[in-house]
Amino acid sequence: MTVNYKVTAQCRQARCGVLHTAHGDIQTPAFMPVGTAATVKAMKLEDVKASGADIILGNTYHLMLRPTAQRIAKLGGLRSFMNWNGPVLTDSGGFQVMSLSKIRQLDETGVTFRSHIDGSKHHLTPEKSMEIQHLLDSTITMAFDECTPYPATYEEVKTSMELSMRWAKRSKDAYQKRNGYGLFGIVQGGVHADLRQESAKALLDIGFDGYAIGGLAVGEGQKLMFDTLDVTVPYLPEHKPRYLMGVGKPDDIIGAVKRGVDMFDCVLPTRSGRNGQAFTSHGTVNIRNSKYAEDLNPLDQACECPTCSNHSLAYLHHLVKAKEILGAMLMTQHNIYYYQKLMKDLRQQIHQGTLY
Amino acid sequence: MTVNYKVTAQCRQARCGVLHTAHGDIQTPAFMPVGTAATVKAMKLEDVKASGADIILGNTYHLMLRPTAQRIAKLGGLRSFMNWNGPVLTDSGGFQVMSLSKIRQLDETGVTFRSHIDGSKHHLTPEKSMEIQHLLDSTITMAFDECTPYPATYEEVKTSMELSMRWAKRSKDAYQKRNGYGLFGIVQGGVHADLRQESAKALLDIGFDGYAIGGLAVGEGQKLMFDTLDVTVPYLPEHKPRYLMGVGKPDDIIGAVKRGVDMFDCVLPTRSGRNGQAFTSHGTVNIRNSKYAEDLNPLDQACECPTCSNHSLAYLHHLVKAKEILGAMLMTQHNIYYYQKLMKDLRQQIHQGTLY
Repeated sequence: MTVNYKVTAQCRQARCGVLHTAHGDIQTPAFMPVGTAATVKAMKLEDVKASGADIILGNTYHLMLRPTAQRIAKLGGLRSFMNWNGPVLTDSGGFQVMSLSKIRQLDETGVTFRSHIDGSKHHLTPEKSMEIQHLLDSTITMAFDECTPYPATYEEVKTSMELSMRWAKRSKDAYQKRNGYGLFGIVQGGVHADLRQESAKALLDIGFDGYAIGGLAVGEGQKLMFDTLDVTVPYLPEHKPRYLMGVGKPDDIIGAVKRGVDMFDCVLPTRSGRNGQAFTSHGTVNIRNSKYAEDLNPLDQACECPTCSNHSLAYLHHLVKAKEILGAMLMTQHNIYYYQKLMKDLRQQIHQGTLY
Repeated sequence: MTVNYKVTAQCRQARCGVLHTAHGDIQTPAFMPVGTAATVKAMKLEDVKASGADIILGNTYHLMLRPTAQRIAKLGGLRSFMNWNGPVLTDSGGFQVMSLSKIRQLDETGVTFRSHIDGSKHHLTPEKSMEIQHLLDSTITMAFDECTPYPATYEEVKTSMELSMRWAKRSKDAYQKRNGYGLFGIVQGGVHADLRQESAKALLDIGFDGYAIGGLAVGEGQKLMFDTLDVTVPYLPEHKPRYLMGVGKPDDIIGAVKRGVDMFDCVLPTRSGRNGQAFTSHGTVNIRNSKYAEDLNPLDQACECPTCSNHSLAYLHHLVKAKEILGAMLMTQHNIYYYQKLMKDLRQQIHQGTLY
């Protein structure tokens, strides 16, 4: 048995569900905090858990370079290494190869690149990505795909998508099934409805435990992203989870949930937290703004996170201005709580049939 | 009533006691984690509390520059500002003026210096230091003194000590008494027994709620430091707390406790933690050492702190090598727990009469 998804409520296109895995259940719609290098930056994992997160994400690219997948395997796998007893999802490494590494050479076999850490040369292929994610003992493995550049011509997007589909087949062939573990395919095709549909069909022919939508939130804007979801999601099976990769801002997530997406990940809450930006019920707050210097209110009156329960805007302003680590810790904590609360509210609205 | 100190046990020169303050009791011997800029760096104060710390220290120099004492007063005082409900001690600012600021001019009135943050010019005097510490609402205020350079000639040390004693008198005169709050004087005199004794007598004539020993741990080495304690502590009153400023390594603290010192502060556990160094029951550990890369043991088998309970040497090695904030958080947490456990063990040994 692979991971098993049950839809528990539906409200128009939006749905609630539970993804059962070997390492615990995931309530959907779910937001997965990003734990790039085996840590959700500036947070203890017990606090991530307390925020309501059921699953976190690890980055294959970062972990294969440091401390290496072989070492993590030797140390008991990624979950044991970082002391997280829930499920983890790892990406395939393809996206970070394109965004972070240098000297990339792409051919039918895979991608050759140099590490951004020490310049060492690596070759990543669908088979290699499956092997690494297996060594990491990821609960959910992502198929290896090419990150299509944006903007690109129709022909470039088509060629890239077709390569990703061949790699998806090789990923499936190389993936080793385990009880309660799963492999997700990734729909590509840019903002072109026909390519997205062709990609979805190709993946369905191969057969995956979940379907991700890749290549969005790369600069196309929210409208094109939503339009693309509108023409893609209907081609994905009802009974499998749908994961929109790398998204996004709170209103991106709300719009995608309304279009039937179940899972999300994004560095925004953690990265923004480290940069002094908070997501709140009354919009984003740049804590560096001097208007907060003597404000004894919390970041968000409506928020029950430990940051908002214990600290004032004035204190957070001071910490972030003084570049204190505690500033990054408290702001990140708030943002992660904010995102988890958002997902909880969406799940509740779907169950109540009030998400319009 | 000022702060009130009761000795509860004695073992040779070492003693246990309780310092009762308006903001809670302090068990001595006590180690005060340093909360420079209104934060014990890289730790939540709830974790500092959980480690066993009864009191934390704030730095007048840092706080007067940012966010300013006036602002902290407006926001309810330092304890309220950082959400610490126990007592706080603030230093007088003199030490950091000498070690951190630029263009210092010293005269009988005080010290003129430029901020290391924005170059702004400030004049700090005993009266100004008392005013700032009052605005911070410090439970324990330190008299303003000159930080005597080391090494220095006997004449230089004598002149500096005498200036500090005149400033001590002015500090006492300017200090505003409040119930359960206290003012500590600072013994100076370098490594010279006669000057230390002269300084102690001068302070006793003025009368303080506690007596600090300043000007040590500045490069004189442990032997000279202990020798100086041997010729200073006997001149301090039995029924008042004794505080050795800026000390130190675990064995410095043990040696000083054996010589009758009750209170300590030092940036070592926090700064070392951020730099990847841990204090353990089997000596210091440099977590960057590659021998820890695949070691699944905790930092310290004998330690019950959350870091040692939840994480391996291998994970900490990875985090610190990858410059992850969580590495600084977990290492600092361990070190603060280690120091508090050290103090708890010393108190127990004194109560049991087994500290030799």
